[in-house]
Amino acid sequence: MTGRLTIAGLGPGDESLITPEVSAALASATDVVGYRPYLARIASRDGLALHPSDNRMELQRAKEALRLASEGRDVVVVSSGDPGVFAMASAVFEALETSREWRDLTIAVLPGVTAMLAAAARIGAPLGHDFCAINLSDNLKPWPLIEKRLRLAAEADFAIAIYNPRSVRRADGFQRALEILREAGLSERLVMFARAVSTADETIETVTLREAQPEMADMRTLVIIGNSATRRVGRWIYAPRNAG
Amino acid sequence: MTGRLTIAGLGPGDESLITPEVSAALASATDVVGYRPYLARIASRDGLALHPSDNRMELQRAKEALRLASEGRDVVVVSSGDPGVFAMASAVFEALETSREWRDLTIAVLPGVTAMLAAAARIGAPLGHDFCAINLSDNLKPWPLIEKRLRLAAEADFAIAIYNPRSVRRADGFQRALEILREAGLSERLVMFARAVSTADETIETVTLREAQPEMADMRTLVIIGNSATRRVGRWIYAPRNAG
Repeated sequence: MTGRLTIAGLGPGDESLITPEVSAALASATDVVGYRPYLARIASRDGLALHPSDNRMELQRAKEALRLASEGRDVVVVSSGDPGVFAMASAVFEALETSREWRDLTIAVLPGVTAMLAAAARIGAPLGHDFCAINLSDNLKPWPLIEKRLRLAAEADFAIAIYNPRSVRRADGFQRALEILREAGLSERLVMFARAVSTADETIETVTLREAQPEMADMRTLVIIGNSATRRVGRWIYAPRNAG
Repeated sequence: MTGRLTIAGLGPGDESLITPEVSAALASATDVVGYRPYLARIASRDGLALHPSDNRMELQRAKEALRLASEGRDVVVVSSGDPGVFAMASAVFEALETSREWRDLTIAVLPGVTAMLAAAARIGAPLGHDFCAINLSDNLKPWPLIEKRLRLAAEADFAIAIYNPRSVRRADGFQRALEILREAGLSERLVMFARAVSTADETIETVTLREAQPEMADMRTLVIIGNSATRRVGRWIYAPRNAG
């Protein structure tokens, strides 16, 4: 097999946040596979086939990409942000386990600017000290595990980046997450809602955890909970290096 | 004041991992301020003044940059990786607190590909499930807090990205960190040592925590400890999306 599979991160939205490495991979690809809204960011050209698919189809999408590559195509699977953070890279490796013949393909993962880094940059430096990243979707893991991680993250005094805080299907989880963090004594912490960062729809809103409402987040929002030392200077919010 | 201060991330090393946004900022800057080895990555040109400084001088460097900007210069402060992750952004905001007159400057933070994302991409997808990032340097925080965070991160079953695992001055901390994680029952976990990723000196080494030796890391190494579900497929290592 001479095909190639590249798993690439498109960054949070703006063209100027796509690495040249990813742009080069897209420029030489014969096929691009991805979630429909991300494929809309790829310029069409002769010789390039786009293969859009729907949300929650990650494993099928990964298998389709591997199948195309095994036919000798030069395939790029795109994620927004970084493909290794709650995105397509894990799904491709899960798919790779299902067929030994795919193991010989040339595979590469190209990193990108993940949502929490883009959000943090707009806000200041809320991830400038130790932090964690938690995906609030319970499609693939039990909700009690998410609760446990939130409690331990609070106890560790990590800043907490929350991916996928809320969707139409999961209206209650984020509310419960906010309650858990309040119960852990974090009510005065700064909570940052960064929506659609680097796109025309970008909004940034900061409140205390006491004031935070579930409706402040949707599926395009990245939420950052500050640690105990996170503070404001002018319009900026940051975690001092000696926090804690 | 009409000066401008931009805090920019140069990514892990390779040119193709610098975002176009950062390249544009560097192309229009009058002054670039940063740690000496990072400034060596900036091409010199007419009209550009480089201001190198030594390690552990972050606050002085940040003040120098703010002072230059307050004189009307177009200043870029560079970090490797992402400036908001254990890098210069927090130091600039700390410096900003020391003088009210600097608050009116035009400041921007430009994100970048931080070391753990570049390392994870080379390895597979070890950060594809919930994870945390801990800076092992105790220059600015008490060592017992680091130990506490390591224990809680193990209990939460996070993958753990360790920045600055080891330096000449801190030879013992990383050994102690490995011991703490073994005591927490993680001896069979996969531990990934990613050194100088995307440079000519790149090395990647994976062992179990039981086999891990402090000497496998130096100040250019990013260490990732897998979570309980992290596994190999072919030459790749990844965290399944349903880990835990």
